[in-house]
Amino acid sequence: MRVRNRPGAAEYMAKYPQYVVEGPEKWQGKWQERFGNNHPIHIEIGSGKGRFIYEMAKAHPEINYIGIDMQLSILSIALDKLVADPLPNLQLLRVDGEALTEYFAENEVDLIYLNFSDPWPKKKHEKRRLTYKNFLATDEIILKPNGEIHFKTDNQGLFEYSLSSFSKYGMIIERVWLDLHNSEFEGNIMTEYEEKFSSRGQRIYRVEARFVAK
Amino acid sequence: MRVRNRPGAAEYMAKYPQYVVEGPEKWQGKWQERFGNNHPIHIEIGSGKGRFIYEMAKAHPEINYIGIDMQLSILSIALDKLVADPLPNLQLLRVDGEALTEYFAENEVDLIYLNFSDPWPKKKHEKRRLTYKNFLATDEIILKPNGEIHFKTDNQGLFEYSLSSFSKYGMIIERVWLDLHNSEFEGNIMTEYEEKFSSRGQRIYRVEARFVAK
Repeated sequence: MRVRNRPGAAEYMAKYPQYVVEGPEKWQGKWQERFGNNHPIHIEIGSGKGRFIYEMAKAHPEINYIGIDMQLSILSIALDKLVADPLPNLQLLRVDGEALTEYFAENEVDLIYLNFSDPWPKKKHEKRRLTYKNFLATDEIILKPNGEIHFKTDNQGLFEYSLSSFSKYGMIIERVWLDLHNSEFEGNIMTEYEEKFSSRGQRIYRVEARFVAK
Repeated sequence: MRVRNRPGAAEYMAKYPQYVVEGPEKWQGKWQERFGNNHPIHIEIGSGKGRFIYEMAKAHPEINYIGIDMQLSILSIALDKLVADPLPNLQLLRVDGEALTEYFAENEVDLIYLNFSDPWPKKKHEKRRLTYKNFLATDEIILKPNGEIHFKTDNQGLFEYSLSSFSKYGMIIERVWLDLHNSEFEGNIMTEYEEKFSSRGQRIYRVEARFVAK
């Protein structure tokens, strides 16, 4: 997701080190310590404006959430929510999804969310898709054995690709929703993007895929 | 698919033993012999009125096709096509899809088609779905190593179920189409049912799933 540049976003975020993690590599292997409990850790890669991860954190105080995005301006919008209404179980992390093994130890994460990731529709950009095998290899390292990725998108091509990419990587397709908003799925929390596009009649696809412990 | 009972269907079919296989168990392991060549064997389980398998056979003379259905009346409609315009590479088989190992040897089949199989939507009928694990186990036996199932349906629930069932069985989801008729897929041959329901705006789903050689 792209948003307009927000002047002063860097300074704004520096004011809230309790929410926006500084020097994240020093927390590798110590995230539960940072949260001050031993609750499971769920992360969202590409958390955008943060509505999903914020509402999840609010709904599930027994889980520690980390929203990850590279873009300063967009992450600062997620920060707005925390500043307005603080939550003890949500942290924001401004790092590159490709380098997650620098910030998380092996088996440190319980669940990964990918929501409306950039589809990179051109074949030559396949390697940039967050469900490309190289990203899955990173995800597998930081996830616990049998850890899951929960992925939703409105992009048909990306969803078709991702089902196959998960499977070819050796993951198990546990559950699939081909029209999430007209399904029996309970507790769906919409991202900003999801609300906008589903209101235009776009179908939302969802899959839960599991790595197989070796 | 259900059709009205066709009076005299049994007698009609008995007149064409060159198309409708009699005593099919005796051809187990000898299907290429029956076709008189060494071409690959592709079967359709639940071939219904036969348009798909007939048109496939016409389009691909280098492949031997076998259309399989349990229902007498419906298989007799497939026979009509062969009687009107004979093809050397298509045989019809009236047997139960559950008992295929009685009619095919291990590794005898190159490809299995499932088209618009009965969705059996109730959970208690899961075992009747042709993509349930017990059917997959049978399919795996008669297919060559790394053999594929090519499955299409308009039934969203069955497709969601099947993706997961294939994957949990250990199959690889090679390719997925979430809207076949609006895709770049070439050479799609529509079944009678497919034409009817897609003309009403129903999406057609398709997947190619592969067994993994052990």
